[in-house]
Amino acid sequence: MERDPEENMGKNSEGDSQKGSGKGMEKDSDTHASLYQESLAMHRRLEGVLEVASKVRLRTIHDLSIAYTPGVAEPCRKISENQGLVYLYTLKKNTVAVVTDGSAVLGLGNIGPYAALPVMEGKAIIFKEFAGIDAFPICLDTQDTEEVIKAVKHLAPVFGGINLEDISAPRCFEIEARLREELDLPVIHDDQHGTAIVVFAGLLNALKIVKKELDELKIVISGLGAAGVAIFRFLVRAGADPAKILACDSKGLVYEGREEGMNHIKEEIAKLTNPDKIKGGLKEAFPWADLFIGVSVGGIVTEDMVRSMAKDSIVMAMANPVPEIMPDAAKRAGARIVATGRSDFPNQLNNCLSFPGLFKGALGTCARRITPEMEMAAAYALANVVTVGELSEDHIIPDPLEKHVVPAVAKAVANASFESCAARKSLEDSG
Amino acid sequence: MERDPEENMGKNSEGDSQKGSGKGMEKDSDTHASLYQESLAMHRRLEGVLEVASKVRLRTIHDLSIAYTPGVAEPCRKISENQGLVYLYTLKKNTVAVVTDGSAVLGLGNIGPYAALPVMEGKAIIFKEFAGIDAFPICLDTQDTEEVIKAVKHLAPVFGGINLEDISAPRCFEIEARLREELDLPVIHDDQHGTAIVVFAGLLNALKIVKKELDELKIVISGLGAAGVAIFRFLVRAGADPAKILACDSKGLVYEGREEGMNHIKEEIAKLTNPDKIKGGLKEAFPWADLFIGVSVGGIVTEDMVRSMAKDSIVMAMANPVPEIMPDAAKRAGARIVATGRSDFPNQLNNCLSFPGLFKGALGTCARRITPEMEMAAAYALANVVTVGELSEDHIIPDPLEKHVVPAVAKAVANASFESCAARKSLEDSG
Repeated sequence: MERDPEENMGKNSEGDSQKGSGKGMEKDSDTHASLYQESLAMHRRLEGVLEVASKVRLRTIHDLSIAYTPGVAEPCRKISENQGLVYLYTLKKNTVAVVTDGSAVLGLGNIGPYAALPVMEGKAIIFKEFAGIDAFPICLDTQDTEEVIKAVKHLAPVFGGINLEDISAPRCFEIEARLREELDLPVIHDDQHGTAIVVFAGLLNALKIVKKELDELKIVISGLGAAGVAIFRFLVRAGADPAKILACDSKGLVYEGREEGMNHIKEEIAKLTNPDKIKGGLKEAFPWADLFIGVSVGGIVTEDMVRSMAKDSIVMAMANPVPEIMPDAAKRAGARIVATGRSDFPNQLNNCLSFPGLFKGALGTCARRITPEMEMAAAYALANVVTVGELSEDHIIPDPLEKHVVPAVAKAVANASFESCAARKSLEDSG
Repeated sequence: MERDPEENMGKNSEGDSQKGSGKGMEKDSDTHASLYQESLAMHRRLEGVLEVASKVRLRTIHDLSIAYTPGVAEPCRKISENQGLVYLYTLKKNTVAVVTDGSAVLGLGNIGPYAALPVMEGKAIIFKEFAGIDAFPICLDTQDTEEVIKAVKHLAPVFGGINLEDISAPRCFEIEARLREELDLPVIHDDQHGTAIVVFAGLLNALKIVKKELDELKIVISGLGAAGVAIFRFLVRAGADPAKILACDSKGLVYEGREEGMNHIKEEIAKLTNPDKIKGGLKEAFPWADLFIGVSVGGIVTEDMVRSMAKDSIVMAMANPVPEIMPDAAKRAGARIVATGRSDFPNQLNNCLSFPGLFKGALGTCARRITPEMEMAAAYALANVVTVGELSEDHIIPDPLEKHVVPAVAKAVANASFESCAARKSLEDSG
């Protein structure tokens, strides 16, 4: 199937198409080739990476009578009398659906729900290994927006939260918004919010180093898929001045009145940003920028562009596997702080830092929804895992495997869940 | 919510409403009260009995790179090139959806998808503990037949098989038939086929003892919900003479031309059975019967009825928790072989004897469907687990925990899957 380049702009891409552009390609290509083969062999040997397990042994008739009939009729009866008790007697409270329609998988594009399954399994085991959350992959055999929404709503009884994954923009915005409206559950499109939280956490720490204020930053965002749009919204909600933001997609800078490649989300962004209606592309956007955020494609940022940025500039180049500009080049061109999505460079902005703790905090409070306060709390908590002593240009964000991250984020999110009235306070009263 | 008595007729019932009818009620009630409380406490302590587990540890960045990005892109690519490979690289091959809409749960009736969840979890852990199958509960928040069908079809990519559970009759017949038609997966409504297989296996062994032939048996079936209809169909397919069968529901004997409480399935049964158009109820049906099969409600069969049966009569009284007639009463009235659904009497006809092996055989061959041959093979294999030496009036069926059952059934089903062309022979060729 063809890749939609517009979608790809907004995804941390994983595909082959970028090989040959940018620097260090041959080495990357070799490294990845070996990871690819190792991954393929492991998935085949294990027949997937996820399994289901029983919490109890069934060795005797008595065991069966408690876990199944006739004993199981009693928790059923209790829940039928009071639906809220489903959080007490079943797996619901700790269980998340990892839902995709396979329309925008990694950088591979619209490969469909079958081919998306290995990614969803991988995501599910990160939930389990990082946060002890039981997540199960749901790969929907439809890409009709209404059908996806309906299917997820039909599935809701079993799950305490819904993680939407790898759904193409702009459909992902409507699907998430509608599900948030229509379900009494936390619904998170991780490609949006997980990414935005990690980027903002990294930015919070970067600003401590460069001693700049968020509302004074001139910001360039490259890529207006799920991640780019969510980052834009998050920054503005946190206090960034949209009039100082320039947003760029595959058609160039977004401005009010642009006609090519627009959608209703980009119209919204065009209204708020770029008051001078600057046209062109990244070259026109970069001069005097304090912050570049790339969630687009590899190799599209040049050293000259970075050189045109303001003093103490911050470059977050998150295209995968090849960043918009390689860290050494960005540094050479004067960037003070550089972050990427890659594990082989400092400052890896990885969603694994946000979604496990975010869901753990939400599930722990049987939350009815995810509030902006919960997402903001997650970002601040994540930033604060990096101590003053650790903070440096090459350490603005914790390592993805850092053990303190999930508990810290979960605790902050749980507090925010109560404060912003997302938590179910009494299961007896609530459906 | 109200219980639909018609639905209840066809379910092994589990509810309170039968207390006080039949014999031994007080003791049963006490026994169950203690099981109920123990089950409730366990479900609360464990927060459900099912969890998800990772097959791999994620301790290093390398681990993450293999189980998740960037390595996971490779199995995705392989599957996107050839959809059949999803059976090789993912959990699909060993994973079953346990799907309900909560419309006919145990004997509790239409308690909805939330209250049904403990039963589905229990079912799922039986899959795992008995057969090593990864089963996950899907409780659909809709009872619209078309919506249920569509939701299951949307879910199909992740699963190697679909176990429908506790869906009310007659909706369950259409839902199963349509899904079998429209999906390339084994779809089994266990309340129908699981029960029919176990009943027929027990009957095969009972006939060895009483030395009667299936096609000569006069048979009375009580209850025409999911189980009763499936048993009827299975017996006829196996060689029973429908003209010698009398079927009875809550409105009495079914005959051609009856108007009360009919549906299209009962019309079909009326055409084939009861050629003399006998009216009335069980009392009129029992005289000279060789076999009584009850999947209805407790206490409705009297000793006088059993006394009117033919010599060497067989009574399978499977209503739960209280059988249609208690075994001691049936024996006293002259029944030679008595089976129930209960674990505290001999000859427990329990679905746990059929569905784990049936699915294991189907999944092992990546079956596209369940064929009649596979179900028949399951019944014969199950019957044959009881050796000639073990066979007796009180041992016509293996114990539900007997370790040889699942391997024997699975092997027979897998062979039948190949012979009846249900198996996917080459994953490379097939979607």
